[in-house]
Amino acid sequence: MLELYHAEPAANSLKTLIALKEKGLEFRSHYVDLHRFEQHSDSFLKLNPEGQVPVLVHDGMVITHTTVINEYLEDAFPELPPLRPADALGKARMRFWNKFIDEHVMNYVSMHGWHRMITVIARNIESGEFEKLMQRIPLHEQREKWRAARSGFSEAELANATRKVEVAVDKVEAQLNDTPYLVGNTFTLADVNFFAHCGYALKRMFPEIGQEKRCPRLLEWEERVRTRPAVARALAMPDRTDPKLRTFTGHAT
Amino acid sequence: MLELYHAEPAANSLKTLIALKEKGLEFRSHYVDLHRFEQHSDSFLKLNPEGQVPVLVHDGMVITHTTVINEYLEDAFPELPPLRPADALGKARMRFWNKFIDEHVMNYVSMHGWHRMITVIARNIESGEFEKLMQRIPLHEQREKWRAARSGFSEAELANATRKVEVAVDKVEAQLNDTPYLVGNTFTLADVNFFAHCGYALKRMFPEIGQEKRCPRLLEWEERVRTRPAVARALAMPDRTDPKLRTFTGHAT
Repeated sequence: MLELYHAEPAANSLKTLIALKEKGLEFRSHYVDLHRFEQHSDSFLKLNPEGQVPVLVHDGMVITHTTVINEYLEDAFPELPPLRPADALGKARMRFWNKFIDEHVMNYVSMHGWHRMITVIARNIESGEFEKLMQRIPLHEQREKWRAARSGFSEAELANATRKVEVAVDKVEAQLNDTPYLVGNTFTLADVNFFAHCGYALKRMFPEIGQEKRCPRLLEWEERVRTRPAVARALAMPDRTDPKLRTFTGHAT
Repeated sequence: MLELYHAEPAANSLKTLIALKEKGLEFRSHYVDLHRFEQHSDSFLKLNPEGQVPVLVHDGMVITHTTVINEYLEDAFPELPPLRPADALGKARMRFWNKFIDEHVMNYVSMHGWHRMITVIARNIESGEFEKLMQRIPLHEQREKWRAARSGFSEAELANATRKVEVAVDKVEAQLNDTPYLVGNTFTLADVNFFAHCGYALKRMFPEIGQEKRCPRLLEWEERVRTRPAVARALAMPDRTDPKLRTFTGHAT
């Protein structure tokens, strides 16, 4: 049996939801309410000591980190429609993109998301309560991110994050000038990764970057990916974010 | 035909040299002299626009980034001795470790290596000459690293890097308490990765961390890995580092 512990269909949770839907895999969905910090609850930490969503449980085996989970689905269900190229070189190109997105895109888009949403949430928590919450967060980096969000990310940090998004958008645009998807002619986990961490929210989060004149191929690609039936079903999963705090609108204050 | 463009048998170059030797693959070795900045030369940038070693060329196809290269060798030569588990869960566990090492270990060990070696090199370059060199470095992050090395990494940066190494050592030690290798009973690319980026240099670079009482299993594992015939052959590849600047000795000044 497959179970997925996940939050809203955005970023990491979206990335795994898309892979599951594309492969047509049935799974039991467990919603983890990040607004109530359920990812730091005792029962969740027993499942994933890192305190992060999503978590895949397959016949009792726990798998974490979305790039790992998504390749796991390829290895565990080779009979289902593949999201990974069959040839060695194609796989290497897919992993090159996944590595680039994981290391040079995800955290920088995320900083802007946190800047717009989590800063508001973090500041609404009373000091003593905030410190108690911090103590429950197992990963040092995640605690630092919460503290940074509460004190506010610096202009320099935000400008660097924007620069990283620009570099990524230009790099993806150059690739999509040559091939319809990131790794040639077929939709792969690299497209899933960039879509979930940047593509689907680009125009809303970074309207000054996501423009027709800068990245026409990327915008076409985004439309093509977003309207895939499986992707549309993933995006239609429940979103309980307070509309006033909705990530990526850029209007959270 | 296989060709590898690489530097000394340390860190990323060591990581791919070990995989090639373990699989018994013949390759044409092209030494790239980092001390002469050959990785930023026009001819090298034509091969890898990111200006980084190592680079694998297989029948004319260029593959970069060691985690990607090493999995490529598994996919391209499935008939050779595997360094990747056969089952889906084992592969996922290997990739979990690879991701952890790539994102939370490599750059932090590297900062201490640069602090000891590259800072000396960077300061010996006259200002105008240094700026010319910087202009040839294609990756923003790599330019920033050179500038930071020249001005000197801050105490806070170095302390954070040491903390990351401590976390990694404790995490690896806990795993090796349960299993002889990072992913169970067999030597995999996860072991190759941790060995090349941290394990083989731990006692020399971080003598206060790499101690019997803190990580006895890790030290045993390091000995077992280092004495594998293929690993020993990789470590015996030429090392042209100026002995006065030898990375990881901690005595570079």
